[in-house]
Amino acid sequence: MTIEDIPGDGRTLMSREIDEIPAAVSRLVRGEASHLDDVAAAVRRAHPRLAVVAARGTSDHAAVYARYLIESELRLPTAMAAPSLTTVYHRSSDWAGVLLLSLSQSGASPDILAVTEAARAGGATTVAITNDPTSPLARMAEHSIACHAGPERAVAATKTYVAELAAVAALVARLSPDPSLGVALSRLPEVLEETLSAAGRWLPLAEPLVDAAVSADRMLVVSRGYNFPTALEVALKFKETSGIFAEGYSSADLMHGPVALAQPRVPLLAFRPDGPMGAAIDGVIEHVTAAGSRVWLVGGRELDVPRPGINGALSLAVDLPETLTPLAFVIPGFVLVECIARRRGMNPDAPAGLSKVTLTM
Amino acid sequence: MTIEDIPGDGRTLMSREIDEIPAAVSRLVRGEASHLDDVAAAVRRAHPRLAVVAARGTSDHAAVYARYLIESELRLPTAMAAPSLTTVYHRSSDWAGVLLLSLSQSGASPDILAVTEAARAGGATTVAITNDPTSPLARMAEHSIACHAGPERAVAATKTYVAELAAVAALVARLSPDPSLGVALSRLPEVLEETLSAAGRWLPLAEPLVDAAVSADRMLVVSRGYNFPTALEVALKFKETSGIFAEGYSSADLMHGPVALAQPRVPLLAFRPDGPMGAAIDGVIEHVTAAGSRVWLVGGRELDVPRPGINGALSLAVDLPETLTPLAFVIPGFVLVECIARRRGMNPDAPAGLSKVTLTM
Repeated sequence: MTIEDIPGDGRTLMSREIDEIPAAVSRLVRGEASHLDDVAAAVRRAHPRLAVVAARGTSDHAAVYARYLIESELRLPTAMAAPSLTTVYHRSSDWAGVLLLSLSQSGASPDILAVTEAARAGGATTVAITNDPTSPLARMAEHSIACHAGPERAVAATKTYVAELAAVAALVARLSPDPSLGVALSRLPEVLEETLSAAGRWLPLAEPLVDAAVSADRMLVVSRGYNFPTALEVALKFKETSGIFAEGYSSADLMHGPVALAQPRVPLLAFRPDGPMGAAIDGVIEHVTAAGSRVWLVGGRELDVPRPGINGALSLAVDLPETLTPLAFVIPGFVLVECIARRRGMNPDAPAGLSKVTLTM
Repeated sequence: MTIEDIPGDGRTLMSREIDEIPAAVSRLVRGEASHLDDVAAAVRRAHPRLAVVAARGTSDHAAVYARYLIESELRLPTAMAAPSLTTVYHRSSDWAGVLLLSLSQSGASPDILAVTEAARAGGATTVAITNDPTSPLARMAEHSIACHAGPERAVAATKTYVAELAAVAALVARLSPDPSLGVALSRLPEVLEETLSAAGRWLPLAEPLVDAAVSADRMLVVSRGYNFPTALEVALKFKETSGIFAEGYSSADLMHGPVALAQPRVPLLAFRPDGPMGAAIDGVIEHVTAAGSRVWLVGGRELDVPRPGINGALSLAVDLPETLTPLAFVIPGFVLVECIARRRGMNPDAPAGLSKVTLTM
């Protein structure tokens, strides 16, 4: 499908579904509250010694977010599952005392199901996060959290990604000794509405970035820490919808080799939270601008101050702790991706060679 | 530096150091044996409940190998460290009962040092694997394993990578209830000599792949399971030495979105072990050849049988369990990368913008 195939008023499903993000998060935070209390109580009773997160694709980026948030808020060591150990090598891990969090928009991928089945049989506390509460994964896990994102019709997942992040944050907030995450979560739908408006106002100003990406075959997308998954997710969306080789990196990992790719024809988009992490990312930005890369930033209020060498910045006045900024920062990323795909003459709702549900074993 | 700057007989340091891989592994396996026995005994006494692996860049790919090998051979859940939790967010994890494996060729990166220091202070059993036994990391960790790779002068690490894999395998073999890994390890130096010869004989036959990569700005490098780090590492080497956007993927993750990048102008190199994992990778290869990708394979004896739709294959008659094939399969990958960098007129020994030791916090 090309851009000419978009029906009706010419707005893509992807664009409409980005607009639905605040409402989806509101339904999750408010509508799932009492069930989340129950799941959190069950997890607390299980006293897990270790968390393991299992997912693929976009959901795997929500899993990376879970990996950072669980370890930092709960001091619980957290690992990413390697499904092939279960599905191909048939090597049983020691699942006793594990909290397994399985994330899947469709709840259907056989490898994530197999890991969940093995973990449950091995004594893990299993929690599924899925947008389909009737899916095989929701039934397989002992506990299931529904994303309440509503049907997602664009192949490129947007609102289900942010809803998965919200579900992770809402569960962790209930288990954390620090009440501030829960307090901030209650404000989240309003903050995301503001972010969506700001992203819309920013897009015309980001025209040089759009131009650069439309003519580029390659891009670098960078962040670190809680927003490392934001970089991975926005890079994946560029690949899926625009055929751009956009590689997502932690700014620290970028310095250990891939920085050799930084050059004038490769635009770099960085997600930069305020505070110490922003300062850490700045060092890398200075390095790549010196190498001739054109750099655009999305971040917090600290970006109000003009920065030499930076081609453009979106300063979001998000009143959120850094732990929740991934839910906001990804929105201008999605808005940008959708616009660039259309400008490249591609229909982001139906990328070539992809289908909505991917089944891997 | 460009290719004209290569001194002497025109052979690059990278090429010479690839040739030294079997000798480096032999020194590790034979020379470090009794010290490895002692480290293994100390780990066994600690009864770890969890392993955590900390590294950056090329060493991080050795860490991914460790993650698979430890979990499959020892049934010990294994996580990759997220250094920013320690160095930027100052969130202390629960290190009690953890086996921390820190990998660094130089033993100098401040973030890996900080994680090792925090883990040791928090009660973890800390083991460093480094090529410099006098490095800060070797002194920081309770136990230190030397890679015995000798000085590595090319910026692109090759022999130290394989030596790190060998160190991981040699430690895990001593802790595994299954003696077969240890038995196979003792044969490893001879097998790697044969692999090196086979890779040299293969290179002229791989001329169409060399041509394709010389004119490509983008590549996909794919494998899964124990050889997932092989794909990551060969992709990183293409980035570092040739400026090619080569992205390394698990074949399962490739299907969840990035497969949209498969197209005639994007060569795909896959590392395909024999057995069930090879069969799992075949399904993905069929998908990308149908999308028009040109595909080359490096793998085991099963590649002796001609495959329709495949542009070329190197069948290595490696008499190794799949767990040790990553040490062999990466060698033709390195040989190919070195050749392609030179053909692109670049000096793989001194890539632009990179230095041998990268210090990140």
